Amino acid sequence: MGSAMARNLLRAGHELTVYNRTREKAAAIGARVADSPAEACRGCEAAISMLADDQAVEEVFFGDAGLLSAMKPETIHISSSTISTALARRLAAAHAATLSAPVFGRPDAAEAKRLLVVAAGQPALVERCRPLFDAIGRGTFVAGEEPWQANAVKLCGNFMIASMLETFGEAFATLRKAHVDPHLFLEVMNGLFASPVYANYGRMAAEQQFEPAGFALRLGLKDVRLALETAQECVSPMPLASLLRDRFLDAMAHGQEAMDWSSVVQVSARSAGLER
Amino acid sequence: MGSAMARNLLRAGHELTVYNRTREKAAAIGARVADSPAEACRGCEAAISMLADDQAVEEVFFGDAGLLSAMKPETIHISSSTISTALARRLAAAHAATLSAPVFGRPDAAEAKRLLVVAAGQPALVERCRPLFDAIGRGTFVAGEEPWQANAVKLCGNFMIASMLETFGEAFATLRKAHVDPHLFLEVMNGLFASPVYANYGRMAAEQQFEPAGFALRLGLKDVRLALETAQECVSPMPLASLLRDRFLDAMAHGQEAMDWSSVVQVSARSAGLER
Amino acid sequence: MGSAMARNLLRAGHELTVYNRTREKAAAIGARVADSPAEACRGCEAAISMLADDQAVEEVFFGDAGLLSAMKPETIHISSSTISTALARRLAAAHAATLSAPVFGRPDAAEAKRLLVVAAGQPALVERCRPLFDAIGRGTFVAGEEPWQANAVKLCGNFMIASMLETFGEAFATLRKAHVDPHLFLEVMNGLFASPVYANYGRMAAEQQFEPAGFALRLGLKDVRLALETAQECVSPMPLASLLRDRFLDAMAHGQEAMDWSSVVQVSARSAGLER
Amino acid sequence: MGSAMARNLLRAGHELTVYNRTREKAAAIGARVADSPAEACRGCEAAISMLADDQAVEEVFFGDAGLLSAMKPETIHISSSTISTALARRLAAAHAATLSAPVFGRPDAAEAKRLLVVAAGQPALVERCRPLFDAIGRGTFVAGEEPWQANAVKLCGNFMIASMLETFGEAFATLRKAHVDPHLFLEVMNGLFASPVYANYGRMAAEQQFEPAGFALRLGLKDVRLALETAQECVSPMPLASLLRDRFLDAMAHGQEAMDWSSVVQVSARSAGLER
Repeated sequence: MGSAMARNLLRAGHELTVYNRTREKAAAIGARVADSPAEACRGCEAAISMLADDQAVEEVFFGDAGLLSAMKPETIHISSSTISTALARRLAAAHAATLSAPVFGRPDAAEAKRLLVVAAGQPALVERCRPLFDAIGRGTFVAGEEPWQANAVKLCGNFMIASMLETFGEAFATLRKAHVDPHLFLEVMNGLFASPVYANYGRMAAEQQFEPAGFALRLGLKDVRLALETAQECVSPMPLASLLRDRFLDAMAHGQEAMDWSSVVQVSARSAGLER
Repeated sequence: MGSAMARNLLRAGHELTVYNRTREKAAAIGARVADSPAEACRGCEAAISMLADDQAVEEVFFGDAGLLSAMKPETIHISSSTISTALARRLAAAHAATLSAPVFGRPDAAEAKRLLVVAAGQPALVERCRPLFDAIGRGTFVAGEEPWQANAVKLCGNFMIASMLETFGEAFATLRKAHVDPHLFLEVMNGLFASPVYANYGRMAAEQQFEPAGFALRLGLKDVRLALETAQECVSPMPLASLLRDRFLDAMAHGQEAMDWSSVVQVSARSAGLER
Repeated sequence: MGSAMARNLLRAGHELTVYNRTREKAAAIGARVADSPAEACRGCEAAISMLADDQAVEEVFFGDAGLLSAMKPETIHISSSTISTALARRLAAAHAATLSAPVFGRPDAAEAKRLLVVAAGQPALVERCRPLFDAIGRGTFVAGEEPWQANAVKLCGNFMIASMLETFGEAFATLRKAHVDPHLFLEVMNGLFASPVYANYGRMAAEQQFEPAGFALRLGLKDVRLALETAQECVSPMPLASLLRDRFLDAMAHGQEAMDWSSVVQVSARSAGLER
Repeated sequence: MGSAMARNLLRAGHELTVYNRTREKAAAIGARVADSPAEACRGCEAAISMLADDQAVEEVFFGDAGLLSAMKPETIHISSSTISTALARRLAAAHAATLSAPVFGRPDAAEAKRLLVVAAGQPALVERCRPLFDAIGRGTFVAGEEPWQANAVKLCGNFMIASMLETFGEAFATLRKAHVDPHLFLEVMNGLFASPVYANYGRMAAEQQFEPAGFALRLGLKDVRLALETAQECVSPMPLASLLRDRFLDAMAHGQEAMDWSSVVQVSARSAGLER
């Protein structure tokens, strides 16, 4: 994900230094390669971080030779990782010039410069970084003036996708027991929703083809949990998100952590006695 | 709905007799008008019924001067109503030449000949009726050889839409408490899902504009209940459908029965303390 | 159940005629045996019906040689079966002198005259039947002046027990994965709740000993469904009852219909990956 | 809670030093009073901590002048607070001679030496501390050899109570809409379950008397969340616990955080339209 974004920034003519734990991955991008996050951001105008989870962001930001140790006050930190709103607030508290700018889109969309960027933070900073967002995506949406609001949007968006997976799971399980072909149902739903997201995930679910994973189920569980944590901060019940959490846990208990998160549909199948 | 379908059948050159409890509605279509269901189907090749619920279908089919009393064995009964799979089986048991052919699409789609038709029943009967389906819709999908299978598909499809409404409800409630504008979130989701169904219902939910109702909430509850009944017949748990049932009941208990079913999003808002 | 109640009525000195589909069962009670429900109730002051489900009650009450065909207007029909509130209303509509009087207690409690009787209907009728209730139970509770209200209480009471089963299921599953002995947990809960209901069902769940069934799981599912139907009539969401319904359906899909309903705890175990 | 336990330890003849943030509370107990947790445990055989939540335990244990800074390796730390299993593991990792020994019972039960003690840790340590447990409770249950297992039992026990509250909430809401008096239902349930826990909480729920709080709702939410965290560590779905979490959040969003946790029944009432 980060690589694709980096290549598009280069193509747009930006000067770039990159850092990755695995140096070869960084080297393959074609930009200058740094030995640490600190070195990567030293002297730059903006530092973009794109990492797997809260823990990775904490290390790269707060850790030894981390971003915080090297950024000047005016350096803009653009946090693009899908992280908790709580961590997003801590990042902004530690460094005023912070934007959250998570993205929607799979790696192939990133490569094609087709990401959706959801940005939040001080309006002046957002405007200054617009050329960067334009370089990596097909649309930038401003969620608010506090960085964590963009993370809330990202988590709610992933919740929308995960919910769609569960609806396929329940409908397919019932229809399979009714001896209706899931592919037939998927065709109808494609006619109805006319959405590539439904088409892609519906196909994986109908074919029960969950490997290789486009997005690992354990990361899906993580995102649902983070959405629930945000909901708790906001004192907002989300019973469908709670249901999803339990379904993903059931999948984890059955060895599906590394499969694509669309494999959550197997939970409905098992529950209906289809996988005995 | 039935009117639009009737007009498209006329336009396609079919000979048509229509019946409606309110004679003026029938007269407005421009076809021959009958005084009873029995009179409408007497001597015809196919009788299409399109009614609001199980009770209406029972009356029109089994009642005095109903379809069953007048159809010849070779008359094909095409049941297009959204009814229970249990009733669909009773209709087929009472009259062998039965097809189920429920449709997806709002009245304006029906008018524009853009419905999706889901048909099920004996293959020969389905083939014979294809010109009729082609006259009213933009696609016909064959769900199986038993009529009730088409009803199962229809109910599962409506379950998919109702689930989407609930996801909007929970995401909007959390985001409103996070001071993020629902319209902003909707824009992102439109970028992500690129589905007219999301766009239309999402807009109604964001604007909290639920009247006039395109599809009344009490009918939405009915359909979720029928989906759960089908799931029970199939011995297939559907916890998300169960959640929806409870949400629609909450809406009913707060006077929303005649609002559009997208108003189910208000349940999430109330639960988060937003409507106090 | 009915046999034990009948024996206690005889012991209390009441004159009794009994009917059972299986004549030998009726004969074993020691009362006069009738050949039909109609014959059993002919000329009597009160007719008590105790049957398995709605369908059985419909047959015995409305059917050929059923109660309705033989009762005089002043004969009091005491409906003790666990049936839907909808059917309870139909029984009362068909015969004014109707009481609902379902009971709580297992067959051994019935034998020991330890049932709890929940009665509802016209106060004068309830008072007239008190000697009968006193003959079979250790306490009579008056739920209201409409018979179906007693059925609502019975269904909600069974919902309370079913909920308790689910709590054991989830706690035991989590604790087994934490390598804590379920028996240890049960001991603590017995210390805390000090309830024989917890002690009995908790032991069955901890020992995973579900046969022979004291109360078959498919009847448990039926009662949860009836509670949900009553809740729907009352426009009252019951999300925990909805959860139970899905858990019982999962159990049904795994062949547990004839096991004791406490075997619903296996659903939690399977969901946690314990029964692979 | 801690005061009552301390008084019973004194009565049993143990030598005791106590610490409380509010010195007057400590002084009222009648034991020697320390100025810090460190001073309280210096030179003693066992240090008992009884605090409100994870954060308080972290401060008292790991903080300046905290227990960890002063305990000798052979001092047994008995952690009686209701805390997360994750923190329980950290406490044991930091100090080998650790036991978890949370208790069940309200303050009046503590005063009456009627607590239930659930202990876990190295068997030799448990045996050595038995006289202490005997001094404060009416029964000691050993959950396992790892301290956190006792915390898992405590959290699951509180989950059982919270579930019972929800069952009352749903049953009462439905019955109130059926015009059945909740007190009548409670009497029947008392006859059925014969549990003081049902009797006490059921009465509060029936009378809708939630203040003063015996146990604040926000603490109830905390415990349900901790149970879910433990379940997640164990990879065990707990859908009923998830439901409870959402119900408590709904209550929080309606200003009930300081009411007794039995006030969660108001969520069901609101959802059924009873509190409009």
